[in-house]
Amino acid sequence: MTDDLPRRVLAPLEAALPDLEALYKDLHQHPELAFAETRTAAEVARRLTEDGFEVHTGIGRTGVAGVLRNGEGPTVLLRADMDALPIEEQTGLPYASTARGVDDGNDVPVMHACGHDMHVTWLSGAARLLAADREAWSGTLLAVFQPAEEGKGGAKAMLEDGLFDRVGRPDVAFGQHVASAPAGWMFTRPGVLMAAAEVMRITLHGQGGHSSRPEATVDPIVMAASVVLKLQTVVSWEIAATESAVVSVGSVHAGTAPNVIPDEAVLEISTRAFDDGMMKRVRAAVERIVNAEAVAAGAPKPPTIETLAAYSATDNDEAETNALTEVFREHFGAEATHLAPQITGSEDFGEFGRAAGIPSVFWLVGGADRDEVLAALNEGRFERDVPAAHTSRFAPILHPTLRAGVESLVVAALSRFAPPS
Amino acid sequence: MTDDLPRRVLAPLEAALPDLEALYKDLHQHPELAFAETRTAAEVARRLTEDGFEVHTGIGRTGVAGVLRNGEGPTVLLRADMDALPIEEQTGLPYASTARGVDDGNDVPVMHACGHDMHVTWLSGAARLLAADREAWSGTLLAVFQPAEEGKGGAKAMLEDGLFDRVGRPDVAFGQHVASAPAGWMFTRPGVLMAAAEVMRITLHGQGGHSSRPEATVDPIVMAASVVLKLQTVVSWEIAATESAVVSVGSVHAGTAPNVIPDEAVLEISTRAFDDGMMKRVRAAVERIVNAEAVAAGAPKPPTIETLAAYSATDNDEAETNALTEVFREHFGAEATHLAPQITGSEDFGEFGRAAGIPSVFWLVGGADRDEVLAALNEGRFERDVPAAHTSRFAPILHPTLRAGVESLVVAALSRFAPPS
Amino acid sequence: MTDDLPRRVLAPLEAALPDLEALYKDLHQHPELAFAETRTAAEVARRLTEDGFEVHTGIGRTGVAGVLRNGEGPTVLLRADMDALPIEEQTGLPYASTARGVDDGNDVPVMHACGHDMHVTWLSGAARLLAADREAWSGTLLAVFQPAEEGKGGAKAMLEDGLFDRVGRPDVAFGQHVASAPAGWMFTRPGVLMAAAEVMRITLHGQGGHSSRPEATVDPIVMAASVVLKLQTVVSWEIAATESAVVSVGSVHAGTAPNVIPDEAVLEISTRAFDDGMMKRVRAAVERIVNAEAVAAGAPKPPTIETLAAYSATDNDEAETNALTEVFREHFGAEATHLAPQITGSEDFGEFGRAAGIPSVFWLVGGADRDEVLAALNEGRFERDVPAAHTSRFAPILHPTLRAGVESLVVAALSRFAPPS
Amino acid sequence: MTDDLPRRVLAPLEAALPDLEALYKDLHQHPELAFAETRTAAEVARRLTEDGFEVHTGIGRTGVAGVLRNGEGPTVLLRADMDALPIEEQTGLPYASTARGVDDGNDVPVMHACGHDMHVTWLSGAARLLAADREAWSGTLLAVFQPAEEGKGGAKAMLEDGLFDRVGRPDVAFGQHVASAPAGWMFTRPGVLMAAAEVMRITLHGQGGHSSRPEATVDPIVMAASVVLKLQTVVSWEIAATESAVVSVGSVHAGTAPNVIPDEAVLEISTRAFDDGMMKRVRAAVERIVNAEAVAAGAPKPPTIETLAAYSATDNDEAETNALTEVFREHFGAEATHLAPQITGSEDFGEFGRAAGIPSVFWLVGGADRDEVLAALNEGRFERDVPAAHTSRFAPILHPTLRAGVESLVVAALSRFAPPS
Repeated sequence: MTDDLPRRVLAPLEAALPDLEALYKDLHQHPELAFAETRTAAEVARRLTEDGFEVHTGIGRTGVAGVLRNGEGPTVLLRADMDALPIEEQTGLPYASTARGVDDGNDVPVMHACGHDMHVTWLSGAARLLAADREAWSGTLLAVFQPAEEGKGGAKAMLEDGLFDRVGRPDVAFGQHVASAPAGWMFTRPGVLMAAAEVMRITLHGQGGHSSRPEATVDPIVMAASVVLKLQTVVSWEIAATESAVVSVGSVHAGTAPNVIPDEAVLEISTRAFDDGMMKRVRAAVERIVNAEAVAAGAPKPPTIETLAAYSATDNDEAETNALTEVFREHFGAEATHLAPQITGSEDFGEFGRAAGIPSVFWLVGGADRDEVLAALNEGRFERDVPAAHTSRFAPILHPTLRAGVESLVVAALSRFAPPS
Repeated sequence: MTDDLPRRVLAPLEAALPDLEALYKDLHQHPELAFAETRTAAEVARRLTEDGFEVHTGIGRTGVAGVLRNGEGPTVLLRADMDALPIEEQTGLPYASTARGVDDGNDVPVMHACGHDMHVTWLSGAARLLAADREAWSGTLLAVFQPAEEGKGGAKAMLEDGLFDRVGRPDVAFGQHVASAPAGWMFTRPGVLMAAAEVMRITLHGQGGHSSRPEATVDPIVMAASVVLKLQTVVSWEIAATESAVVSVGSVHAGTAPNVIPDEAVLEISTRAFDDGMMKRVRAAVERIVNAEAVAAGAPKPPTIETLAAYSATDNDEAETNALTEVFREHFGAEATHLAPQITGSEDFGEFGRAAGIPSVFWLVGGADRDEVLAALNEGRFERDVPAAHTSRFAPILHPTLRAGVESLVVAALSRFAPPS
Repeated sequence: MTDDLPRRVLAPLEAALPDLEALYKDLHQHPELAFAETRTAAEVARRLTEDGFEVHTGIGRTGVAGVLRNGEGPTVLLRADMDALPIEEQTGLPYASTARGVDDGNDVPVMHACGHDMHVTWLSGAARLLAADREAWSGTLLAVFQPAEEGKGGAKAMLEDGLFDRVGRPDVAFGQHVASAPAGWMFTRPGVLMAAAEVMRITLHGQGGHSSRPEATVDPIVMAASVVLKLQTVVSWEIAATESAVVSVGSVHAGTAPNVIPDEAVLEISTRAFDDGMMKRVRAAVERIVNAEAVAAGAPKPPTIETLAAYSATDNDEAETNALTEVFREHFGAEATHLAPQITGSEDFGEFGRAAGIPSVFWLVGGADRDEVLAALNEGRFERDVPAAHTSRFAPILHPTLRAGVESLVVAALSRFAPPS
Repeated sequence: MTDDLPRRVLAPLEAALPDLEALYKDLHQHPELAFAETRTAAEVARRLTEDGFEVHTGIGRTGVAGVLRNGEGPTVLLRADMDALPIEEQTGLPYASTARGVDDGNDVPVMHACGHDMHVTWLSGAARLLAADREAWSGTLLAVFQPAEEGKGGAKAMLEDGLFDRVGRPDVAFGQHVASAPAGWMFTRPGVLMAAAEVMRITLHGQGGHSSRPEATVDPIVMAASVVLKLQTVVSWEIAATESAVVSVGSVHAGTAPNVIPDEAVLEISTRAFDDGMMKRVRAAVERIVNAEAVAAGAPKPPTIETLAAYSATDNDEAETNALTEVFREHFGAEATHLAPQITGSEDFGEFGRAAGIPSVFWLVGGADRDEVLAALNEGRFERDVPAAHTSRFAPILHPTLRAGVESLVVAALSRFAPPS
C-alpha cells in the first residue's frame, strides 16, 4: 500500500474537523456511566445510519455496531469504547461535565476521565471518511462502539450477546487509546502492551453494634483496614522486584453512622499483571490474606470474594503490529511513531480478537501538549503536572489529537482492506 | 410522697395500653432519621394538643415541647428522643420497618434500632396520664420530644433555638432509655452514668488516579487503613487498663470505582470517656495520629478533622438520683430497682440540665425478656443472643416494657411536683 | 495489740539504719538476674545465720528461707524477692549499677529497676529486729527470699522444690513492694490488688533468604510486625472500656544481618487482667490472631506459643487486709495509710498463700519524694517526671523508705504472732 | 586470542583439583564474619606467596592483594570476596560449618551461605595457574581478596586504605559469583547486572517502662511494627509495577525482658534498585515514613537513621562484557554461556572499577546440579527446592563448579593480557 489512497480518503478530514470537535465537546459534556451510554449510543447510531452503515443497537445492552459491506476483501473491525467514569470533573474547561449518574444505586458525578469521548469521535470520523470514499477500498468495515469498558466487561457483553452472529466475523481488529503523550504521536508494541486485570468485590462480614461497645461487635472496618495494609505485601513481598503486578483498592465502603459499627465492609480492588501465571499467583495471595484476616478478626463467616470483571492482557499480534507500525511510520513519520512501553492499565479490547480467533492490534495516540510533556519529563514533574487518565483534571488537547486518531484508524483499516478492484 | 397518688394517676394506664401499643408499632414502622422526624413530631404534637398542653413545634428544627401549667410548684421536664438510625431492620417482626431515608445525600434504610419509638410512646403515655389527673399534682409539666439524639446534637439544637425562652425554665429534668435488661426493671446511678462522646469526621486528602498506577497517586485508602489501625493504639497503648475510653470508626467511605483511586477518604469516628480530661487526651492522640499518617503518606495537605457533635458525660445529680431510686424502690420493689453500671454509650439528655443549671437524672428501663436475659448471662451467651441497641435485630418486648416506662416517668414527675393543694 | 510492743522491737532500728543503707547500696550495685541471685542469696543467708535463723538455701535454685521458731503461736511468712532486670541503669547515682549478666545466652546490663534490693534490705532488717527481741512475740517466723519474681516464676520454683516441707506451713503470708508514691506511706487493698499475668514466647516461623529477594521467602519480620499491630486490637476492640486487660510486647528479636531475611521472629509478650475469665479471653484472642497471621503470611508452619510464666492475680484476704490496715493506721497514722488502687502489675507472691491454703496480704510502700510526687501529680507531669519501676531511672529515695518498709514488716508480723507468753 | 593458550595454562587444573577441593572444604568449615577473615586471609596470603606474588595484607583491615608483575601489558584485577554470614548451617554436609562468631557484640553462628569460600578457592586456583605459566601472558596480575562484602563495604575499605597506591592501578577488573544455576554455566550481562543497595540502621527512640503500664511509655516495639508495615507501601504503592525496587527489613531487635517495654527498637533494612534516581526516591520515602511514624507515636525524639553501607549498581562495561562473552562462548560453548537476568542482589565489586576509572565485568557461574535445576524450573518448584544464597541450606556442588570458576578467571585474564612476547 502506498500512502496515496489514505491521503485521498483523508482529504475531507480538514473540513470535517469542526463537526468532530462539536461531537467531542458534546460527548464530553454528556458523559454516561457503563451500560448507561444511551445518549452516546443514539448519536453514534444516527451518524452510522447517515453514513450508510447497517446499524445494530442494543448489543450487550448499550453497544452499537455498524456494518459497511463494500465488496470482496477482509473484514476489519475498528473499535471505540463509550463509557465514562464516576469522577467529578475539575478541568475548568468551558465544556467540562457537570453530569451525574447512578452507580450501584448511588448518585455520583460523571466525567469522561479516560478519553472514551475522544475514542468515539475518532471512530465516528473514520467511519464517515471510509464510507464516503468506498472506491478507495474493498472489504467489510465493522465499526464497533462498545459499552462499559471500565471494569464492567462491555466487550464480553457484546460478544455474548451475539455480536459476530449479527455482523459477521472480522479478520482483524484494531483499537486505540488516547495517552498523556505528545499529541499526534503513535505508540505501538508487538506482544503484550497492557496488563491483564481482575476486578474483585470483597465483602468482609462482621457483626455490627453500638460504637460505644466495640467489644460486642466483630468490627468490619478494622478488618478492612488490616486487609488493605496486608494486601500491600502481595506486591512488596511476594512479587519479585523484576516482576510486575499491581494490587489496588479502588473503593472501601462501610457504615452509615458514626455511632453504629456496621455489619460489613465492602472493598473493590483491582489486580493487574502481564501474564496469566502472575494473575493466578496474585489472586491466590489475595484470597489467602483476605480469608486469614477474617479468621484473625473472629468473623462470623468467611469474606465473600466476587469477580466483577476479568480482562486478559492486551496481547498485540506480532506480525500485524509490525506491519501497522510500518504503515504509521510511512504516514506519520518515524519521529511520530514510537515503541510503546508496557503499561499496567488494562483493556477488554483484546476480547474481540480472542473471541474471533483473529489477530488484533491496540495502540496509543498521544493527546497532550508536546512541549509541555517533554519539558515535564525532563524536569521530573511529569507525574505531578501532566494530568493522567482517571483523574479529575484529565483533558486531551483537541488539536492535533482529533485529527491524528481519525487518521490512524483510516490508515490502519486501509492497510488491511483489499485494494479497490 | 406515698405511692397512693401515683397509683391513682396510673389507674387508667391498663386501659390505655392498646392505644400506646398501636402508637409504638406505628412509630416503629415509620422511623425517621435525625432532624427529619416530621411525622413523629406531628403525631406527638397532636396528642399533646388533645391532652391540653400548650404545644411548641419546630424547636431545633423538628423538636416539640408541650407545657402544662397546673398551679404552683416545681417545673419538671420529661424528655424523650425521636430519631431513628440508618440501619436495615432484620427483626422479622410483623411491624418491622421497611422505611428509607436520606443521610448525607444517600438513600439508606431506617430503623428504630435504639428504642426512641419506645421513649416517645412512654412520654406520650405519661403526659396523657398526668394531664388527665391534674388534681393529683401541682406545678408545671414540660414534655420535651427531642430530635436528633444520635450524634447530631438535637438537645443543643432545641436549647439554642430558645427552648427555655419559649416554655420556661425547669427545676429538674428526667429522662430514660430502654435497655437490654429484664423488662420492667429500673437501673439508676448517681454521678456519671453514661460517657461523654465526640463525633468527628476525618477527611484524608490524597491525590487520585488510575488504579493501575498507584505510584502516580497519594492513595487515601491506604492512608485510611493505616489511620484505622493506628487509632487502635490510643486505647491499647495510651490509656491505662484501669481507665476507660473508646475510639470507634463508624464509617469509612472512599472511592466510586474499582479502577480509580479516589482523591480522598472520609472516616467518621466516635470517641468516648467518662471525664473531660480523658476526652481531651483522646482527642489529642487522634489528631496527632491522623496528622502524622498524612505526613507518612506524603499527602498534599493535612487531614480535615471536623467535630460533628460533642456530648458531655451524663452526670446524674447525686441527691436527686438517690431520692428517685427510693421512689422506684417503693413503686417497683427493690427486686426491680438496681444500680446501673457505668456504660460507654452517650446521651445528650444532660444538655438540658446543664443549660438550665438544674439537676437532672437519667435512668434505664429494662425491655428484654427477663428469663432469656438471665439465662443468657448465666450461660455466657448474652452478647451473642440478646440483640443490643444499634443492631438490626434490636427489639424490646412490648410488655411489661410499655407499662413500666410510663409508670417510671409518672412516679418520677409526681415525686417532684408539689402535692395537690 | 497496742503499739507498745512494735515500738519496743523497732527501737534499735535507728541505730541499724547505716548498716541497712550499706546493704541496700551493695545490693543495688550488684544486681543479679533471675535464678542467678547467688551473691544476694549468700549475703542474705549469712545475715539470717548471724541472727539465729535456721537457714535453707538453694530452694528453687537460688531461694533462701530462714526459720525462727520462737514458741507457740502462728507461723508468719514474710517474703522478699531478690532478682534484678536486664536494664541499663541511668540514674546517675553514685551507687548505680554497671553490672552485666547473661539472659537467654546474651550478655546484658543488669539493674535493680524494680526495687527488689529494697525488698531484700527491708526483710533482712525486719528479721534481725524480730530475732533480736524474741520476748516480744511468740510463734514462728519464716523469712523467705525468693528468686526470679520477674516473669520467671520463682515463687512456684521454691514451692515445687518443697519449701513448706522444709520449713513448715505458715498461717499467713505478708509481702510488700516499693512504689512511686510518697516515701513512708502504706497502701493496702482488700481483694484483688494486682493483676494476673501470663508471659508468652511466640515464635513465628517463616522461611529466610537473601534480602534482595523477599519473594523467595516467608518473611517472619513482616509477620511479626503485623502480629504486634493486630494484638493492639485485643484491648482496643475485644475488651470493653469498662473492663481491664493489658497486652504488651516486651521484646521482638529477628535477624542477624541486614541483608539476610531470617527464618523466624521471636516475640515475648505479657498479658494481664484482674480475673481468670478475662485472662482466658485474652489468651484465646492472642492465639487466634497469631495463628491467623501465620496463615495470612503463608507460613510453613503454625507459630509456637510457649507459656513462660503465669501469675494469678494478687488477691488479698479481705479480713486480714482490713485488720492489717488498722494496724498500719495506728502505727503510721491515717494520713500515711491509704487505699491502694488496683494496679496492672503482677506478682507471684500470691503463690505462697495459694499453695498453703492460707490468707495472704500484699501492700505497697511509698519510696519517692513526697513533695515531688504530689507536685508532679498536681501539675500533670507524674508520668513524665517520676521514674517508674522497670525504667532505667527508677531510684527510690533511701529515707524514710528504708525505715518504713522495715517497720511495716515488723508491725505486720507482730500483729499476727501470739503475744509473748 | 585463540583458545590454545588458555588450554595450555589450564592443563594442570585437573591435577590441582584435589588441593582446591580441600581448600574449599577447609574454608567452608571455617567461615569468618566480615572484617574477621583472618584465618582465610592468612591461607590466601600463604598461597600467593608460594606462587611468587608480592603479597600485601591487612588492606582495609583484613584484605589481601597479590601482585604478579610479568612484563609489559595490561594490569588485570581479579577479585574474590572472603566473608561469611551469621547463619546457622543446615546443609547436613560432612564439611558443614559449626563455627561461631561475634556480630555487633553477639555470639552468632557463622556459615559460608553466599559462596565466598568458592570465590576464594577459584581465585586461588586461577592465580596459581597463571603464576605457573608466565610465558603464556604478559602484563600484571592483581589478585584481590576482599573482606566484608556482605553489607559492610569491604571494597571501599580496601580502596580507602590505599589499595591502588600499594599495588598499582589496574586496566580492567573482573569478578564472579556462584549462582543457583546449572554448574559450569556462565552468565554475563552488559550494563547493569546487579542492583545498587543501601543498608540502613534505624533506631526508633521511645520511652520504656513496665509492660503492665504501656500508657506510661512510648512503645518502640509498636512503633517498629508500624514502620515495618508502612515500609511495604514504598514498593507496593510508590514504585511503578514496571519499575524495580526492594525494601527489606533484615533484622529487628528490641527489648530484653517480656515484662519491660524497652527504650528503643533497632531495625536494619536494605534497599535496592537498578539506578541512582530510584535509590534516592526510595531513601526519601523511607525517611518520610520513619520520621512520620515517630511523630504518630509521640516519640521523644526523631529516629536515628544511619547508613551502614551503600553499594552502587554493578554496571558492566558494555564492550568488555561483550568481548568476554565471546571468549566464554568459545571456551565453554554457546550452550553454557547465557545472558544473565538483572538481579536484585548487590555487590561492591563495582567499587574497584569506579575508583580506578576503568571498565569492569562481573559475571555469574552456575553451581547447582543441572538436571535438578532444570527439572525444578520446569515443575515450578525452583524457589522451594533449590537452596538460594543466604539460606541455611545453600550448598554449591563441587564439580564441575570448582573447575569452571577457575577456568573462567583464567580465560578472562588471558583475554586481556598482552600475548606472550
